[in-house]
Amino acid sequence: MFSKIKLTHGDGGIHTNELIQDVFVKYYGEGSSNSINDAFVFSVNPQKLAYTTDSFVVRPLFFKGGDIGKLSICGTINDLTTAGATPLYISASFIIEEGFDMESLCDIAKSMGEVCRQTGVKIVTGDTKVVEKGNADGLFINTSGIGIVSPHYSPFRVEPDDEIIITGTIAEHGTAILLDRYELNIETDMVSDCRPLNNLIPLLNEDLIYIKLMKDPTRGGLATILNEISNHAEFNIELDESRIPITQQVRAINEMLGIDPLYLACEGRMVLIVKKGFGDQVIQRLKQTPIYADAQIIGRFTSNTQGMVYMQTEIGGKRIIPALEHQTIPRIC
Amino acid sequence: MFSKIKLTHGDGGIHTNELIQDVFVKYYGEGSSNSINDAFVFSVNPQKLAYTTDSFVVRPLFFKGGDIGKLSICGTINDLTTAGATPLYISASFIIEEGFDMESLCDIAKSMGEVCRQTGVKIVTGDTKVVEKGNADGLFINTSGIGIVSPHYSPFRVEPDDEIIITGTIAEHGTAILLDRYELNIETDMVSDCRPLNNLIPLLNEDLIYIKLMKDPTRGGLATILNEISNHAEFNIELDESRIPITQQVRAINEMLGIDPLYLACEGRMVLIVKKGFGDQVIQRLKQTPIYADAQIIGRFTSNTQGMVYMQTEIGGKRIIPALEHQTIPRIC
Repeated sequence: MFSKIKLTHGDGGIHTNELIQDVFVKYYGEGSSNSINDAFVFSVNPQKLAYTTDSFVVRPLFFKGGDIGKLSICGTINDLTTAGATPLYISASFIIEEGFDMESLCDIAKSMGEVCRQTGVKIVTGDTKVVEKGNADGLFINTSGIGIVSPHYSPFRVEPDDEIIITGTIAEHGTAILLDRYELNIETDMVSDCRPLNNLIPLLNEDLIYIKLMKDPTRGGLATILNEISNHAEFNIELDESRIPITQQVRAINEMLGIDPLYLACEGRMVLIVKKGFGDQVIQRLKQTPIYADAQIIGRFTSNTQGMVYMQTEIGGKRIIPALEHQTIPRIC
Repeated sequence: MFSKIKLTHGDGGIHTNELIQDVFVKYYGEGSSNSINDAFVFSVNPQKLAYTTDSFVVRPLFFKGGDIGKLSICGTINDLTTAGATPLYISASFIIEEGFDMESLCDIAKSMGEVCRQTGVKIVTGDTKVVEKGNADGLFINTSGIGIVSPHYSPFRVEPDDEIIITGTIAEHGTAILLDRYELNIETDMVSDCRPLNNLIPLLNEDLIYIKLMKDPTRGGLATILNEISNHAEFNIELDESRIPITQQVRAINEMLGIDPLYLACEGRMVLIVKKGFGDQVIQRLKQTPIYADAQIIGRFTSNTQGMVYMQTEIGGKRIIPALEHQTIPRIC
């Protein structure tokens, strides 16, 4: 095997096939597709399916707590989870810069395989393109995914007093990328929260009937997705700053950098909009699983219909949390 | 609307939403998804589904007879067609270089919308990422797709004397890209064969039961995919050079350039492996539709089991057609 990616690895010929066999089939694991066919064929019972896609351009490719491979599979699993779906099949498509290090590619494919084994999803179809040196930044991944939607979950209209839950501490992925990106000389053991959330669906199970909407606060962070939701629901959101879970480390690093962690991405958290009166019940259910130990009801919808997000601050004031207009850092996913 | 792509168009905030509304929703047309949800939910009857993905890095983005947008939708439709599937839903994900021209992006989205309207497929989920200037070559597109597999089609084992059909003239896409890439000063009206082939499934209908395998000869051209097929089938293929459809223009341009058109991509042709004795029947059916007027039986499988491809040449010799080891031109799709 070559130690660097060559243009011929993307031309559909002998080298492309070697790459598929020696890297992707090898590391994706059992059940990954190995056929000469361009499309994967499967059957489903008459159920609702969810379908999603995402491209990943994160920089650096390897960060504290993960890499672009892990991120790409988790991202697609989590997008399917937002639809109440158990992920089934994933497609993985690479755009690689000529000269890319083969060992790094193997590490990325291994990370993808690990998440697949951990979650039971299978990478069943894929594609590899190679572009000339200088025409891409190392490697980009696109994943798409298909999942089976739980019969207990059907999103419905948000109303005043519906409760807003976040399943864990915020801004850890964005902060991990910041640390790597700017090579900040800060002693810290913090890592990205990047993880698959597919276990939310079986965990919540029948409690899914009280959940009106799920969304993972990735690009633009908690503030941006709450703005999207309030805007769409046409009711205001009132957050309680003191209840937003955030670690001391993340708080301190962002204070030092002058960055608002409300706008930094999570890659392993979910925002749940829960029917009024059922928030505590959902929190109890979540806390049965250690990775959701920090889940909190962080706010509620009010009857004001501007579709804006307000926050009661810890010092007693109230401020508007606007939608993101200028990004804090590009390419976090 | 900005005239150039900014990094903020990829940050998930206000500008990203504007881009989705003003470009993608606008041009993709009726039925394209416009929801705030990260995943598209749909139901199917208990049928077999096909699932595929491809990334597109073609250079130049606009070529004679198409552009990267048309190519991306056609490519995914045609990959679903190889599985005997009628395409239903498509995902479209963009990686765009900062500073990319907004008008060109609109033209690309328009091309995608046109193929969707023409074929009845819908773009239901998508993603947009923007990378800094110099970190991508203009724009890359990933599409994935889901289709419903015809009950008449189930690929089965190739045997000696099975017949090989190509649905039209070869090498037109690759030649069109060559002309554009090298800005050759050749007077020609030739264009890429880039087109959706979804009508093959209803056209062939019950004749699909005689078809053992379908594959579109894109990257690496006819020679490469026939090598893949013969290798997989473990029977040799014998081609008849005089029956391979190719226009005089394509032949002349490639002779001039010293390039073998057998290795140049088609983006609107299909290779069909047909059960022995049924080739003529399938050809008759194909010729009912003008775009398949040049369909030909170009060869057959022999009982030799090396999995190699031979060609009876027009001057009476016989030569091996090897698998592609060094690409003719990179980034044709």
